[in-house]
Amino acid sequence: MNVIEVLTKKARELDAPILSYLQEGQPENMMESCRHYPQAGGKRMRPVLAVTMAQAVGGKGHLAVPFGAALEIIHNFTLVHDDVMDNDDTRRGLPSVHKVWGMPTAIISGDALFARAFEIIADLEVPDADVRRLLRLTARTVWLVAEGQQMDMNNEDKDSIDVATYIETVEKKTGVLFGAAAAGGAIIGGADPATVDRLYDYGRQLGIAFQIWDDVLGLKGDQSKLGKPVGSDIRNGKKTLIAIDALEHMPDGEGREALLAALGNPDASDVAVKEAIARLEEFGSIERAKKAAIDYVLDSKAKLQSVPDSAEKDFLLALADYAISREL
Amino acid sequence: MNVIEVLTKKARELDAPILSYLQEGQPENMMESCRHYPQAGGKRMRPVLAVTMAQAVGGKGHLAVPFGAALEIIHNFTLVHDDVMDNDDTRRGLPSVHKVWGMPTAIISGDALFARAFEIIADLEVPDADVRRLLRLTARTVWLVAEGQQMDMNNEDKDSIDVATYIETVEKKTGVLFGAAAAGGAIIGGADPATVDRLYDYGRQLGIAFQIWDDVLGLKGDQSKLGKPVGSDIRNGKKTLIAIDALEHMPDGEGREALLAALGNPDASDVAVKEAIARLEEFGSIERAKKAAIDYVLDSKAKLQSVPDSAEKDFLLALADYAISREL
Repeated sequence: MNVIEVLTKKARELDAPILSYLQEGQPENMMESCRHYPQAGGKRMRPVLAVTMAQAVGGKGHLAVPFGAALEIIHNFTLVHDDVMDNDDTRRGLPSVHKVWGMPTAIISGDALFARAFEIIADLEVPDADVRRLLRLTARTVWLVAEGQQMDMNNEDKDSIDVATYIETVEKKTGVLFGAAAAGGAIIGGADPATVDRLYDYGRQLGIAFQIWDDVLGLKGDQSKLGKPVGSDIRNGKKTLIAIDALEHMPDGEGREALLAALGNPDASDVAVKEAIARLEEFGSIERAKKAAIDYVLDSKAKLQSVPDSAEKDFLLALADYAISREL
Repeated sequence: MNVIEVLTKKARELDAPILSYLQEGQPENMMESCRHYPQAGGKRMRPVLAVTMAQAVGGKGHLAVPFGAALEIIHNFTLVHDDVMDNDDTRRGLPSVHKVWGMPTAIISGDALFARAFEIIADLEVPDADVRRLLRLTARTVWLVAEGQQMDMNNEDKDSIDVATYIETVEKKTGVLFGAAAAGGAIIGGADPATVDRLYDYGRQLGIAFQIWDDVLGLKGDQSKLGKPVGSDIRNGKKTLIAIDALEHMPDGEGREALLAALGNPDASDVAVKEAIARLEEFGSIERAKKAAIDYVLDSKAKLQSVPDSAEKDFLLALADYAISREL
């Protein structure tokens, strides 16, 4: 299976349904800013996950489309607010919402997207008891995402963080929303509670693996596909799993000096950054991060064991492999 | 009945329950910023309304406490984000959230409060079908509040707005959350759908009356109780119902020149502002705004007609009168 092809096909089928939830409302400038990121595309991983999971557990995919759209809208709300907080100028090749409409409208639009997602959940064509479960799952997830964002910000202010803190941060920032997509799809598809819990973990661990792999790509990726300069994580002093590993274990004299000279040094030369990456590679920090991502993917795939064989299950397995096979 | 005394007593009974929902979570700086406004007090009008309405329609008040807390938390989330957008330095006598913890944490905390409110709704001790109704009501309300905030911002950029736009803006900014409190309390109290709709309007119209009366107080209030200089609405060019009335109907030569000289002129002298207020009074604009608020209160109270007599109903009627009897 060409997983990117299938993912893209599934994503494009969801574009119109997602945008259909962002038509009704006013004033027009708020509505335009609400649609700005959602209509710019994106991989739609969360709604694809929700719909495919509903099918994989034996349910009807179309019943999970609105829930998937709600999660995609929540994902976009977090992007709008993130860009304000980080004062990022661009997103998906477009000027960010606050650059076009100003900071106040960006904050309001994020809040509006958040509210719309919960309006969608209130109207899901599922039993009332499942609305309560999906509401609990989704609200809890957004709370945890907020925790993750605050942790991420706090981490930046620290000299070092440990591996457990790193994992908890990426779990909350990314893992839980993937988990909610998988579990929500499973609920709508009619899975029993124990299965729902397992499939939540499938999504959660998949999300963590994606994030760790992003760290690897940040050092070893193809500049043209990365959207940022290779090694910018080094200059920014980003607390990646790789940097954490090296700072914790690399002894003096084995390249630690070269690493410390470039890490968090915005003026580090290209040569110095290359040198630091070479030391990280030599010491095995990059390999250990890769290994960690692979372990998360293996754990993740194991959670699908009780799901009967189908094209949808194959896709979910392939999606997990995709997390750790994206091009270096 | 001394409505302020009863309101205060009911409010203080809700302080601890509201804060109990803001204990669990991390990191600590996010939790502290989440609690900053809620623990600074406030009149708790929305939760008091929800609980009292549940009792007034024959239900148990304690079942409505968590829902009331959710609305109070939503109200506080809008205050946190409002203060960022307006860059206001203080709130309830304290430095605003973004002044203490910075803009990014203020945005995250607002989002977290929003999420927590929906977590509370998911766990309400009411039938699943009512969770769906309360979710729909609350999510719709937050969407409308966002619309109102954007309208308010757009209004500022216009030379003039009409009365209908003014009413729609205050309805969305304030009325709908009061409406949700009343209707939500009624749902939890077991009222039939037609009654719930009527009681929504009670709250909605009450909220509009409160806002219009605030405009009146802004020109005719007691400086020591107002929290801002009397007439600052004139200097800021705020599009109050009073200003809209005058701009629309006041003919040249009857004080219009004096009004225009001060309206939206930050450098207008105290004498010029007093002169403008005198002209507004003379022309009847202030009286017409008062009359509009009184009409909303009368309409609002009429919505309580089918509610049986009780101490709670008396309080709800008195609360409506309070909206238009707050001291000038």
